[in-house]
Amino acid sequence: MLLTKGQKFLMIGDSVTDFDRARPVGEGLFNALGTGYPMFFNASLQAAYPELMIRTVNMGVSGNNVRDLKARWQSDVLDLKPDWVSVLIGINDVWRQFDSPTMPETHVPLAEYKETLSGLVAQTLPHVTGMVLMTPYYMEPQREDPMRRRMDQYGAAVKEISEQYGTLFLDVQAMFDHLFTYMHSANVAWDRVHPNAIGHMLIARGLLKLLGFDR
Amino acid sequence: MLLTKGQKFLMIGDSVTDFDRARPVGEGLFNALGTGYPMFFNASLQAAYPELMIRTVNMGVSGNNVRDLKARWQSDVLDLKPDWVSVLIGINDVWRQFDSPTMPETHVPLAEYKETLSGLVAQTLPHVTGMVLMTPYYMEPQREDPMRRRMDQYGAAVKEISEQYGTLFLDVQAMFDHLFTYMHSANVAWDRVHPNAIGHMLIARGLLKLLGFDR
Amino acid sequence: MLLTKGQKFLMIGDSVTDFDRARPVGEGLFNALGTGYPMFFNASLQAAYPELMIRTVNMGVSGNNVRDLKARWQSDVLDLKPDWVSVLIGINDVWRQFDSPTMPETHVPLAEYKETLSGLVAQTLPHVTGMVLMTPYYMEPQREDPMRRRMDQYGAAVKEISEQYGTLFLDVQAMFDHLFTYMHSANVAWDRVHPNAIGHMLIARGLLKLLGFDR
Amino acid sequence: MLLTKGQKFLMIGDSVTDFDRARPVGEGLFNALGTGYPMFFNASLQAAYPELMIRTVNMGVSGNNVRDLKARWQSDVLDLKPDWVSVLIGINDVWRQFDSPTMPETHVPLAEYKETLSGLVAQTLPHVTGMVLMTPYYMEPQREDPMRRRMDQYGAAVKEISEQYGTLFLDVQAMFDHLFTYMHSANVAWDRVHPNAIGHMLIARGLLKLLGFDR
Amino acid sequence: MLLTKGQKFLMIGDSVTDFDRARPVGEGLFNALGTGYPMFFNASLQAAYPELMIRTVNMGVSGNNVRDLKARWQSDVLDLKPDWVSVLIGINDVWRQFDSPTMPETHVPLAEYKETLSGLVAQTLPHVTGMVLMTPYYMEPQREDPMRRRMDQYGAAVKEISEQYGTLFLDVQAMFDHLFTYMHSANVAWDRVHPNAIGHMLIARGLLKLLGFDR
Amino acid sequence: MLLTKGQKFLMIGDSVTDFDRARPVGEGLFNALGTGYPMFFNASLQAAYPELMIRTVNMGVSGNNVRDLKARWQSDVLDLKPDWVSVLIGINDVWRQFDSPTMPETHVPLAEYKETLSGLVAQTLPHVTGMVLMTPYYMEPQREDPMRRRMDQYGAAVKEISEQYGTLFLDVQAMFDHLFTYMHSANVAWDRVHPNAIGHMLIARGLLKLLGFDR
Amino acid sequence: MLLTKGQKFLMIGDSVTDFDRARPVGEGLFNALGTGYPMFFNASLQAAYPELMIRTVNMGVSGNNVRDLKARWQSDVLDLKPDWVSVLIGINDVWRQFDSPTMPETHVPLAEYKETLSGLVAQTLPHVTGMVLMTPYYMEPQREDPMRRRMDQYGAAVKEISEQYGTLFLDVQAMFDHLFTYMHSANVAWDRVHPNAIGHMLIARGLLKLLGFDR
Amino acid sequence: MLLTKGQKFLMIGDSVTDFDRARPVGEGLFNALGTGYPMFFNASLQAAYPELMIRTVNMGVSGNNVRDLKARWQSDVLDLKPDWVSVLIGINDVWRQFDSPTMPETHVPLAEYKETLSGLVAQTLPHVTGMVLMTPYYMEPQREDPMRRRMDQYGAAVKEISEQYGTLFLDVQAMFDHLFTYMHSANVAWDRVHPNAIGHMLIARGLLKLLGFDR
Repeated sequence: MLLTKGQKFLMIGDSVTDFDRARPVGEGLFNALGTGYPMFFNASLQAAYPELMIRTVNMGVSGNNVRDLKARWQSDVLDLKPDWVSVLIGINDVWRQFDSPTMPETHVPLAEYKETLSGLVAQTLPHVTGMVLMTPYYMEPQREDPMRRRMDQYGAAVKEISEQYGTLFLDVQAMFDHLFTYMHSANVAWDRVHPNAIGHMLIARGLLKLLGFDR
Repeated sequence: MLLTKGQKFLMIGDSVTDFDRARPVGEGLFNALGTGYPMFFNASLQAAYPELMIRTVNMGVSGNNVRDLKARWQSDVLDLKPDWVSVLIGINDVWRQFDSPTMPETHVPLAEYKETLSGLVAQTLPHVTGMVLMTPYYMEPQREDPMRRRMDQYGAAVKEISEQYGTLFLDVQAMFDHLFTYMHSANVAWDRVHPNAIGHMLIARGLLKLLGFDR
Repeated sequence: MLLTKGQKFLMIGDSVTDFDRARPVGEGLFNALGTGYPMFFNASLQAAYPELMIRTVNMGVSGNNVRDLKARWQSDVLDLKPDWVSVLIGINDVWRQFDSPTMPETHVPLAEYKETLSGLVAQTLPHVTGMVLMTPYYMEPQREDPMRRRMDQYGAAVKEISEQYGTLFLDVQAMFDHLFTYMHSANVAWDRVHPNAIGHMLIARGLLKLLGFDR
Repeated sequence: MLLTKGQKFLMIGDSVTDFDRARPVGEGLFNALGTGYPMFFNASLQAAYPELMIRTVNMGVSGNNVRDLKARWQSDVLDLKPDWVSVLIGINDVWRQFDSPTMPETHVPLAEYKETLSGLVAQTLPHVTGMVLMTPYYMEPQREDPMRRRMDQYGAAVKEISEQYGTLFLDVQAMFDHLFTYMHSANVAWDRVHPNAIGHMLIARGLLKLLGFDR
Repeated sequence: MLLTKGQKFLMIGDSVTDFDRARPVGEGLFNALGTGYPMFFNASLQAAYPELMIRTVNMGVSGNNVRDLKARWQSDVLDLKPDWVSVLIGINDVWRQFDSPTMPETHVPLAEYKETLSGLVAQTLPHVTGMVLMTPYYMEPQREDPMRRRMDQYGAAVKEISEQYGTLFLDVQAMFDHLFTYMHSANVAWDRVHPNAIGHMLIARGLLKLLGFDR
Repeated sequence: MLLTKGQKFLMIGDSVTDFDRARPVGEGLFNALGTGYPMFFNASLQAAYPELMIRTVNMGVSGNNVRDLKARWQSDVLDLKPDWVSVLIGINDVWRQFDSPTMPETHVPLAEYKETLSGLVAQTLPHVTGMVLMTPYYMEPQREDPMRRRMDQYGAAVKEISEQYGTLFLDVQAMFDHLFTYMHSANVAWDRVHPNAIGHMLIARGLLKLLGFDR
Repeated sequence: MLLTKGQKFLMIGDSVTDFDRARPVGEGLFNALGTGYPMFFNASLQAAYPELMIRTVNMGVSGNNVRDLKARWQSDVLDLKPDWVSVLIGINDVWRQFDSPTMPETHVPLAEYKETLSGLVAQTLPHVTGMVLMTPYYMEPQREDPMRRRMDQYGAAVKEISEQYGTLFLDVQAMFDHLFTYMHSANVAWDRVHPNAIGHMLIARGLLKLLGFDR
Repeated sequence: MLLTKGQKFLMIGDSVTDFDRARPVGEGLFNALGTGYPMFFNASLQAAYPELMIRTVNMGVSGNNVRDLKARWQSDVLDLKPDWVSVLIGINDVWRQFDSPTMPETHVPLAEYKETLSGLVAQTLPHVTGMVLMTPYYMEPQREDPMRRRMDQYGAAVKEISEQYGTLFLDVQAMFDHLFTYMHSANVAWDRVHPNAIGHMLIARGLLKLLGFDR
């Protein structure tokens, strides 16, 4: 288990992370973590490793792309002094290219995505114990779907950045692809983006196993 | 134009037809037609052919499959004495097979679907001027997607029935497939089923052209 | 078809345009265009001319008169850099003269209306491909009705401005007058101003035909 | 003053009478009379003739036509044993002919209207001190408007019935026509049917003067 | 009739005047006058004297005492440039002395009340055609009730100010006292302050008769 | 202390007793006793005499008069097998005579009141340890007020019945009269019927002292 | 793993199981399983063992005790033909003894609890593959607390029944006791009964491990 | 009785004091005192000692610890110029240590608690007639519970401060401990902190007796 006693694990991202978390900071009483993978992650950790007293913080914001993350990185990540930071971003960067094709100002091109995310990682690593970069995903198993193809490019960028900076890396897209060999994506999300409990648990399990959870 | 003055056109189906129509009968004041394709159909017709005084009735019910249609066919179709009946059913018959795989009692097998729909058509044709059968659809252009493949089988069944009974036939799936050569399906529906205004207008235009609308 | 690929078409006006559009800008996901003629216009265009990828923006504000338009023209029209601008204004300029006769500060006299609208057109034309001016209307077919008579004067002013500046011109009042040879205005609007779907479709069809829509 | 101490005055009609009255009986505490002319009638009477202790009962039901009145006449009029009954019905009988032209089952033809209303009057007179019949109205001063013309026929029928049976008669349409020589109907009702406080007060004053109110 | 064509009549006071009026200014469409005596006043005037085109404005604010009136007099009275101003204030000045006896800072002593009200009248008269001062009231007919006795002192002060400045004067308390010779105050208000429609109509009729209304 | 361990004390009455109690039975978790004197009674008892384990049940129903009590006496009193029953009824029997003077069917005359209440007491005494009869009240200290005079007659009837049957008796009216030598009734209730916490506590204390509470 | 492909696992109990499940049957789309341990159980199972296609059904009802379970056992358990049934009941049977001490009819004595639960198990075992009996619990680590002591007796009864009938057995109380060696119970539930996500995950993990889950 | 005529008694604390009081100041009409012990305190005082005219003010704020009190002490206590101040603080200072163990910034250590509270007392005493310090409490009778043990240390600190400064002192924890010899704490509060009416009455009675209340 890579986490050690009393560490703070901050999760940042878009609506998949947010899932109705508390404002301004998603931590503490009254279901402040929301109902997405951060909640499943924390519940698993506290139930199985209560002695670690890990502090989970959810800073996801619905609708965010990597530009939005950059704009609030200081206040929403660095100022909170986390020991660990996980990032799941990129879905909206790509989605808007397909659901809002006429509004280019809402699209984040691959180059900008990669450069911005790299910058955030570089800026953060000196201050934390570790980072986890997760691939954005589209729950469309047909890889020739144009949005899936595009998303795979963004996922590949995440992988490159992860390798370049030596962070932990979770291929969420691959996890969903594997799951969909057993069930149709409609069993996890009608819109192929916002998971039900099955999908959130899948992400949380992926994160936990990556960190050495084995109870 | 196949429609003649004062005819009643009844549209039946599932949530795609329903789209917040009035109860018990979706006709008349206060947006009783809902906000889906029946509304676009009627608005186009009244605006362009006001002299026809066509009477549009929306009898869609969210979540319905062909079994549900059969159960309410007498009260919701025949008793209302329409001149024309359009049917758009089958999406839920298939969808549940993929989004609720563990609940087989919610699935309608192809054979049952075809037999039930045939029965409804046979029972209705003697009482009406004409019927329009529409294919159920899935806004997934990748035809190897398992749910799309299954949906295509149900669509083929509709086509067969239509040919057998000599009804009008609208291949909604084909219309969407054509549209998606220009845009991604995410621009019409995140869940690939419930269309936004673009998709509803597309269906309404298909129906109208089939009926000879040319103004 | 006058519209070319990727152009932005901005519609400004009062509640007839607004019809529950999103704020601050009526464009994009989640029915941001509202449920009035801009939505019918866009749905028709995207369904029939998907290759054009036209960008429709609804900037109507309920209750507005031409004074209000002037006050927000820079931020709500020019700053958004549209290729096309349609204007449907004047109903409230006249209506308040009749439903609030004791409150003269809410009335916009004909001369001021004409001068203000002219100014907006003159200021805008250099920056756009084209403009469409629409007549304000009152769904009262009896032309001797005092409010109808007054409205006709404002409509005539719009026509004059349109001719003077060479913009496109849509006589919405005439379209309604024609429609009401087939049905009573109560079938379109109880208050003779806010159309139901039939009336909105009529306006949208008028606009589209003016622009060369023929599919 | 025709009313004598302790009499019960029951008002029946459609939404113009109803105006949010209490159910099942519109009488008593907590604004049970609603906010339409029955409230203005009662407030004027109690304030100016407190010694009479008149009992006002509002039995209007929104959307009602004369058929609906007949169906509930026993329970909603006769069983309540009023001394006086006023009737304001017919607007919906006519309105549906114009706002729902395709739905003939919602239209009440003139002959049926007249016969039904006559029957109710004949059935009631033996049991009451007096009745007031009011003309249905349309706040459209242009008499050539088709709906206004039709409404005038129904109003004429009311007048005939009133004369035939010797009831009191209030020409509400004429009162509005007079008012509209001073102001546009838009100052009283946008939809030309549901009055604001000015219109309700006008009706209440008409009723009261007819009954000899002179304080 | 003292009012002449086109005059603006502004009514200021506390919750009895306010009664759910619109903000910031209680005038115009959508029941902006609220449902209290200003609405009855205006409805009567417009229905009976439509040719006068009087402009009624309701500036009552719930909970106000004379101190509060002074604080907003410039913006809420003088800036609106009325021709007539009516004032009904003092109920809260007294009521708090009895329902909140331990909170003296909420009580307005008689001397302060009189001086403040005098000041407002003196400041306003030069700018208006006329003013109406109304007595605050308590619907308690037993004059030995301590709160009634106190209220009578405030009412007497209003009368004095009215005589001193030569304004119109309406003894609302006396009107209620007269009414309660016929009915118990519980028939007008449970709390002896906030009238139902009977009480509001009584005040409105008092005002109108004072101004010469005789139709 | 007259109450002994484990006894059930049932309180019945009108809105003064009800005060938002739970349905169908006002007892148990989640503030089922409401917020009126039964709650104050029970809270005092449990806090000061926890060893008694008294079971308080609130069966008040807003708007009830003694007729309503009779109609539900079997199900709402006898079937619940209380050891003690307190009754506070009569306010609505009298109030309607004054706030709804035109509706005699809502008035309960003194003779009927007395006879009905007597019957309930006679029917109940054999089955219980004791009963407490409380006078209805009107928080109007001026005894010449007509409603107060009438209420005093009903209170006297309660006293007579109490003496006749040997029940406990609480003169709530007298308690309020005493209180109002120190404060105006407006400090306890604007409507002179529904007490605030001060008034409810007063009633509860009266009941408790009557039962021998002395801690 | 004891579960085999396609089996139906039904969970019955009180509010801890219910946690906002759908009615009438807690299964399927739209978070029908609620947000308690059945959801965590199902999400874990579907994410880790997708090939098993287990069908989880939540039939918990808030406030239930073992009597309530018996009353609905036929319709809510047997009629649904589950392969597995888990039961978590007894908390309310005990809690009412302590939070409603004066209402003995809400208490379920140990003997009745044991006999009723035994009967349900005996009645069910012949029809299912397996059952899991869970101990009711109270998150109070101090075992001398009277409610905890009582709860332990009910838990011991569950254990006995489980051993007698050879069902699976989960000692939820023991799991919480272990957890509370690391954290105070206030970190899981303020009321010591309704768990947050940590507690629900703990129960779900206990169930899963009992069934052989090891991924 | 220590209180003398017209004194102001201000109660400050956390959610136990707050209990839905009015903002910004919890005093006056419309249940401004909330529904906790300040309301019971005031109701008892006004009902039993109406001649004292005591002014009760509730300044509790949910969630507050002693740090929060210090931050608002000037505006919420001193500026209101009370004669008496009661303080019930410390529950959240301790609770967060147990329900949010990972968030140390929400914990108030004993030393800081004691020093801060001492400072507030020292700062206030010169300006008031008297102060009452109440112990924070946890309704857990088992004293070896870690949170109870901790709470007892904070309570002991309160006692020390009280003795040092000679304030009145109420051992709320001891009162609850005594009560729980007769009933389980679940009968007063499920979460062992927020009392029902029984618990609030207990606190109010404690305060009143301390002040010499004996009626």
